[in-house]
Amino acid sequence: MEMARVGARPDGGVDRLALTEADGAARALLRDWAEAAGCTLAVDGLGSMVLTYPGADPSLPAVAVGSHLDSVPTGGKFDGAYGVLIGLEIVRALHAAGKHTRAPICIVNWTNEEGARFAPPMAASEAAMGFTDAAAVLATPDRFGTTTYGAALDAAGWRGTRDPAEARRFAAYFEAHIEQGPVLEREGIPLGIVTHGFGVNYCTITVQGQDGHIGSRMDDRRDALVGAAEVILTLESIAHGTAGRGLASATRLALEPDARGNIPSVVRLVASLRNIEQDGLDAMKATLAAACQEITNRRGMPISIDYVSGYPSVRFDAVLLDRLRRAAEAAGLRHRDLPTPIGHDALHLGRVVPSAMLFIPCHGGLSHNPAESITPEWSAAGLAALGPAVIETAGGLA
Amino acid sequence: MEMARVGARPDGGVDRLALTEADGAARALLRDWAEAAGCTLAVDGLGSMVLTYPGADPSLPAVAVGSHLDSVPTGGKFDGAYGVLIGLEIVRALHAAGKHTRAPICIVNWTNEEGARFAPPMAASEAAMGFTDAAAVLATPDRFGTTTYGAALDAAGWRGTRDPAEARRFAAYFEAHIEQGPVLEREGIPLGIVTHGFGVNYCTITVQGQDGHIGSRMDDRRDALVGAAEVILTLESIAHGTAGRGLASATRLALEPDARGNIPSVVRLVASLRNIEQDGLDAMKATLAAACQEITNRRGMPISIDYVSGYPSVRFDAVLLDRLRRAAEAAGLRHRDLPTPIGHDALHLGRVVPSAMLFIPCHGGLSHNPAESITPEWSAAGLAALGPAVIETAGGLA
Repeated sequence: MEMARVGARPDGGVDRLALTEADGAARALLRDWAEAAGCTLAVDGLGSMVLTYPGADPSLPAVAVGSHLDSVPTGGKFDGAYGVLIGLEIVRALHAAGKHTRAPICIVNWTNEEGARFAPPMAASEAAMGFTDAAAVLATPDRFGTTTYGAALDAAGWRGTRDPAEARRFAAYFEAHIEQGPVLEREGIPLGIVTHGFGVNYCTITVQGQDGHIGSRMDDRRDALVGAAEVILTLESIAHGTAGRGLASATRLALEPDARGNIPSVVRLVASLRNIEQDGLDAMKATLAAACQEITNRRGMPISIDYVSGYPSVRFDAVLLDRLRRAAEAAGLRHRDLPTPIGHDALHLGRVVPSAMLFIPCHGGLSHNPAESITPEWSAAGLAALGPAVIETAGGLA
Repeated sequence: MEMARVGARPDGGVDRLALTEADGAARALLRDWAEAAGCTLAVDGLGSMVLTYPGADPSLPAVAVGSHLDSVPTGGKFDGAYGVLIGLEIVRALHAAGKHTRAPICIVNWTNEEGARFAPPMAASEAAMGFTDAAAVLATPDRFGTTTYGAALDAAGWRGTRDPAEARRFAAYFEAHIEQGPVLEREGIPLGIVTHGFGVNYCTITVQGQDGHIGSRMDDRRDALVGAAEVILTLESIAHGTAGRGLASATRLALEPDARGNIPSVVRLVASLRNIEQDGLDAMKATLAAACQEITNRRGMPISIDYVSGYPSVRFDAVLLDRLRRAAEAAGLRHRDLPTPIGHDALHLGRVVPSAMLFIPCHGGLSHNPAESITPEWSAAGLAALGPAVIETAGGLA
């Protein structure tokens, strides 16, 4: 609740767009809290904060607990912040008891996870894991086109010297998060053991028709919006064909010439495909390509699909997931397995470092919304499972 | 070609948006030419120019020949200008020969026919005929939102004192125009006798879905863009169901929240329905309403259809059309009947005044395009049919 005052919106939400003043204040508050709990701060070249609570054996690789403090402009209190502050809570408990684990524990705050200011999302962890180029991330323009990630990082004073690639040496990575879906609340289960991350591909789909007056005969037309409508319905039907294992959406649409009296000649869709398994994702892409080709052939309209970003599906680490389940059971808490269809930094970490995610419920499945909310009991349930699992993974108390 | 130099674009087209400097220069040129040919200018309260060549009997109501000198921003040389200058040519021929018809002949240049600066199109003639309110037309904001029709009229110095309603007393109205379609050129026929004007209804269709993250389950979604895609395909299928008598198009689409990671919650479409007969147009509207209701029921998404403007179908005057056919035949020119699916001021005039339209071919059916072009032969063919028909309608030479 104290962190939620930083960048608070009048409607109860938070607005902590990455590397703004509000994000800087949140970072400073985390730093102060973590340093007071015995941590040492390092900031990497992409601005991500790594707060290390020393282990008894400094030669051991650290166990990391992280998420993000940035938010979308109309964000809520818990998306991201919960996963950072639960790491702080574990460290505070150890510090208050004068205890250390064998391996160090790191609290990580990834920069710009939301991608709401610098697209795409999760680029700081993606670059840290070596799947995108750090220099390209630094050159990303912001949504207003007035600065870049790198310039904003310098202006905010958060460009550090730690090599982002050091994160590849974590012994393990845990990320706790609100579910952003209705399942746990609906079933009355306080803990979701996240077994998979959906693979995701974002694409731009361009339908090329032909300009013309809206008085022209139907048979003479190549109306790109009609072609695009078929693509949109195709995306829905592809997702329905996966029996719940895949999702597909078109979320943005721009058309030319965008004039009342003119047949649309070009339509550009922003779309995404998701699937719990990489094979399933690949199959969806193949089906989409074939369906677009069929539309092209039938309507005489070229359709191009440009995949612009994404990440493969991830299976989280079985050993870490089992530790979370056992900790939940020891605390008398119900849990169930769940996949995450939504992106998190853990999806990039999980490609390199043994990783696991833990979900707690959120009311109505709401997120990216000022009304986002959880109960103190759900929050505590997360800690009851994550704390023991992290300590066990860090070699137990020294 | 001389008129096409006014507001000429480097690509060969013209940009004479209504009541701009270029439109004012075109108006001044027309005035100078017509006055030199013995005409007297009157300007009505909506800026439309009426240039009267006197008849032998001033008590007779005038026969009008008109169209418009304004253009879309990427317009061509002939759309509108041809129909004004053919009137000038008839008057010039009479003046050069020292002749007069019994009734006066008026050359009319309707203000803002295109509606490209002040929407909707053809409002000056619509108001003159009494189908919309002149005060509302004067209050129309321009496309840039910086001025209104009335203020632009005053700034350009073209607000006159003639009552627009005087145009209802024309004995007849003729409008010659390029076809804006491929039929005449394809068939090698230089003259189209325009028997009907399609009835048109413009509407805004709003599909109300529900916001959500693109990671949400397909069954939990109410994706307004998917609903809108069904509406777009419904429009196409309604038009195909009319066996060539109807047209339907969605030409603009705006969505909210227009963010890559969010299910579209609201989509607004700008659409239009056209039909050669009023009954057919009404049937299309009923089919659209029923189809939207079915989508609403199936998808749980309210869809509203707001009809914002339009005009009924018009059958042009049989006597005037016959005069055009006979004049064409006397000149040895082939002709065929055609409807006009596209709006012209004649569609409003035809609701009150006996009216007729005449088409000449244009290359590739192109209009609203800098590449719009005709041949001198097609231009002369129009005059060969229209001149005698106008003179006959004006009671012959005095």
